[in-house]
Amino acid sequence: MPDTIEDRLSAEGITLPDAPAPAANYVPYVQTGNLVVISGQLPMADGAVKYTGLLGGGVSNEDGIAAAQLCAINLIAQLKAACGGDLSRVTRVVRLGGFVASTPDYGQHPAIVNGASDLMAAIFGEAGAHARAAVGVAALPFNAPVEVEGMFEIRP
Amino acid sequence: MPDTIEDRLSAEGITLPDAPAPAANYVPYVQTGNLVVISGQLPMADGAVKYTGLLGGGVSNEDGIAAAQLCAINLIAQLKAACGGDLSRVTRVVRLGGFVASTPDYGQHPAIVNGASDLMAAIFGEAGAHARAAVGVAALPFNAPVEVEGMFEIRP
Amino acid sequence: MPDTIEDRLSAEGITLPDAPAPAANYVPYVQTGNLVVISGQLPMADGAVKYTGLLGGGVSNEDGIAAAQLCAINLIAQLKAACGGDLSRVTRVVRLGGFVASTPDYGQHPAIVNGASDLMAAIFGEAGAHARAAVGVAALPFNAPVEVEGMFEIRP
Repeated sequence: MPDTIEDRLSAEGITLPDAPAPAANYVPYVQTGNLVVISGQLPMADGAVKYTGLLGGGVSNEDGIAAAQLCAINLIAQLKAACGGDLSRVTRVVRLGGFVASTPDYGQHPAIVNGASDLMAAIFGEAGAHARAAVGVAALPFNAPVEVEGMFEIRP
Repeated sequence: MPDTIEDRLSAEGITLPDAPAPAANYVPYVQTGNLVVISGQLPMADGAVKYTGLLGGGVSNEDGIAAAQLCAINLIAQLKAACGGDLSRVTRVVRLGGFVASTPDYGQHPAIVNGASDLMAAIFGEAGAHARAAVGVAALPFNAPVEVEGMFEIRP
Repeated sequence: MPDTIEDRLSAEGITLPDAPAPAANYVPYVQTGNLVVISGQLPMADGAVKYTGLLGGGVSNEDGIAAAQLCAINLIAQLKAACGGDLSRVTRVVRLGGFVASTPDYGQHPAIVNGASDLMAAIFGEAGAHARAAVGVAALPFNAPVEVEGMFEIRP
């Protein structure tokens, strides 16, 4: 594994976007103590939702996983902003909340949210091991198939 | 913006209800350290759920927004109880979790949850800027269209 | 109420399982400060999901409540591991997040999640009184009817 978080992002072929603006009247993240709580991120790229639809209803697992990874990239972009640009301040990915828009008979939500979890492990190493909830919701903003929120621990 | 939180509530025409009792065997809020975690609030008024149904399936966006605002009023009522009656102890609205009961093809959840977010901004000013997740669930307790939970930071 | 948490578990006829392994690439719990955040637990027993289906669509309320209790047993098993085996270190059940897979016309989610809440009260006494969100999702991993995640406060 490359030494620095920025090197690991490069090794994954990831260029962090500008931290996406929230979809409504709230802020992308709040710090309380040494916890950073980040708003639910959608699979946005270049200012648009890149995937739409339901798992089990037209969206393939492969696209669902890619959408979850894109949500995670946007989480990391927000986290970098919260850290004043220095991701080495991240001491732990505490929790991811993964929401997967799915049909009622779909059951492979964990595999989809792994698109986000695997990236956290690849980028943050041991500090990337997190608690998680993965659930199947009826629908998501702008008909996105995945939304992921996060809680992180950082040092001053 | 009026000087005090109580004045801002009055300016919005809001009289806080008695903090609604929980729907089941749990408590309305828990404080841990300087964080107050408040249970999911429904659009209850005068002891009854005021709105029912699904967004995208009979409930108008206007009613959905009003329902979200009512959830936020109930959150603030619980928060006031958690603060021993003194809302000036609130240092930050950390996170709102907004659940919108919706049909699978509905996608305007952020606009609905704004009914809660806008009120937090109006009442708490800069301290009201919060992180947020807004998702579309299949159904909510008592067929309510919206439920909002919250995490807040308070000072002693 | 019996004196110790282990005695109360016995009084409820509960033998804690080995803490279930997570369904994917994450960890069962993370401690940050004196908070323990535990991943969403499914109604697993002996390595398999014991209940499947939707509330309002084939799963009885009785089975839904039993499923929620089983999720709570698994939460307590994880919590015991997080406490190095000593559940007397638990100072507060802070929050449960209860996800109930349900049809859109179902509305009795609080009664289902009580299966988890009642157990927390029975086992942890006053420290078991928690904040909670209970919502009705479209589907859950492996078609489970209930998933419950938790946040707990522990002492060193």
